Amino acid sequence: MTTPRVGFLGLGEAGAAIAAGFAAAGASVRAYDLALQDPDRADAVTARADAAGVELADGTAELLSDRDLVCSLVTSDVAVRVAQDAAPHLGAGQVYADLNSTEPAQMERVAELLGPSGAEFVDGALMAGVPGPGHRVPVLMSGPGAERAASWWAQLGGEVDVLSDVVGAASVVKLARSLVVKGLESLFWESAIVAERYGEAERVLASLGTTLPGEQWNEFAGYLMGRTVRHGERRAHELDGVARMLEAAGLDPHMARATGARLRTVVAGLGPDATPASLPADPAGLARAADDDAPAT
Amino acid sequence: MTTPRVGFLGLGEAGAAIAAGFAAAGASVRAYDLALQDPDRADAVTARADAAGVELADGTAELLSDRDLVCSLVTSDVAVRVAQDAAPHLGAGQVYADLNSTEPAQMERVAELLGPSGAEFVDGALMAGVPGPGHRVPVLMSGPGAERAASWWAQLGGEVDVLSDVVGAASVVKLARSLVVKGLESLFWESAIVAERYGEAERVLASLGTTLPGEQWNEFAGYLMGRTVRHGERRAHELDGVARMLEAAGLDPHMARATGARLRTVVAGLGPDATPASLPADPAGLARAADDDAPAT
Repeated sequence: MTTPRVGFLGLGEAGAAIAAGFAAAGASVRAYDLALQDPDRADAVTARADAAGVELADGTAELLSDRDLVCSLVTSDVAVRVAQDAAPHLGAGQVYADLNSTEPAQMERVAELLGPSGAEFVDGALMAGVPGPGHRVPVLMSGPGAERAASWWAQLGGEVDVLSDVVGAASVVKLARSLVVKGLESLFWESAIVAERYGEAERVLASLGTTLPGEQWNEFAGYLMGRTVRHGERRAHELDGVARMLEAAGLDPHMARATGARLRTVVAGLGPDATPASLPADPAGLARAADDDAPAT
Repeated sequence: MTTPRVGFLGLGEAGAAIAAGFAAAGASVRAYDLALQDPDRADAVTARADAAGVELADGTAELLSDRDLVCSLVTSDVAVRVAQDAAPHLGAGQVYADLNSTEPAQMERVAELLGPSGAEFVDGALMAGVPGPGHRVPVLMSGPGAERAASWWAQLGGEVDVLSDVVGAASVVKLARSLVVKGLESLFWESAIVAERYGEAERVLASLGTTLPGEQWNEFAGYLMGRTVRHGERRAHELDGVARMLEAAGLDPHMARATGARLRTVVAGLGPDATPASLPADPAGLARAADDDAPAT
């Protein structure tokens, strides 16, 4: 089995970390990033490519001319545009994996755009943060090209779970899972805020340990609530995608919408001094700060 | 320490189970239930009292005339009315424990109604189903009479966690905890329903085990989702109380309202043949049945 030639559309933090792992495993890795056209950002991309041991292409056409596997890792708002630009330069025998964090409907749209090219499409979902594990990050893939992409991934030392040939399957698992985790985070907040009016936030979190499986619920709640402090706006934004996914499936996004709304009220109420370390030792302070009505103090 | 004389206002399933335990432990236990005035229901109450070894009083006044501890265990919609009827017959030295599943504001209202009587009030929360454990059910108490009620409870073989002398503390813990558990149940449903459109409901539930503490998440999700099937309407109704609690505290009940709404759509979509045993082996069937748009088939 020959080593695959891999191309990256987008060389941000995630793309660079995976590309570096593939390059270190002996693959030919080339990348192109739209930021190369921006004089203010081009240098940063070039530095990232150098650090990753990745060659840069002059444009999409050049990049795609000889790649076996193309990975799209851009920001979710430009994922469709990048696929549109790529489509004319792709052909049969190539595999195009969209690894962006988007909802199933957007994966289906990208698959449709690439259809005429003859390239096989992969709906891919990165299931954890990439910095750290790099190309060993857990990945789910579905769609017609998933098996081929997964075998190349394995050849380079990564591991992919292939779900089915249904485009949308990988991204629905990622977002549905995200709904539960972020929804739970919002439930902890809403419960803690109201319980703290009676001085009992910590007791609620502690008592959940007697009901839910596992034993570290107080800690886990603190961890999740700390995530709101650090990444609340981004997490709320991700829930907008989950809500769109439900709507596209003809379902009312009750929990998804409420989760996004709750995370946003918490973020709005948290002052810059609120840190995860203050949790759950001082839920009272955070509960006051997260009050829907009171502005942050 | 003399054995307390205990009175029960309300001798439904929960009241009878606790009363039976107290009677068996040697307490003098008497009860009165409004259903005794209804010819169609009086016989059932009498039979329940006989089975529990509990004497029946002729009315509220007689019941309360010599009781140390009075436990109100009626339906939540009549808890305030029952307290109103009791107030003129209570006096200093007596303890009145409202053990109904109501929100803190309602406990505060009952406390206010009983204030002039001189009886000490207890906000009590039963933290599990009573049939089975009986008077050994986990109980939280707060309010001025909590310590005395708890020591009587202990004398009779039960165990009470006393939180504080703040009326509302026990009920806020119960409802805030309930919000997390039922909210999680709704998150499982919403996630499973949308994921099953792509054939991946089980994978989402299974994959949560890699993130959440503990290891039996697939089973726990199945258990909670089964609760929706059996008790969804009652659970949604409880969430209405949670939402009122948040509103009374000046907070938007984002998650509480969404949880109630999601449970109701699931209940509406579940046919009479849906059983917990079909979970998670057949989430597809339940997901189809729980579709927001499609009526139950």
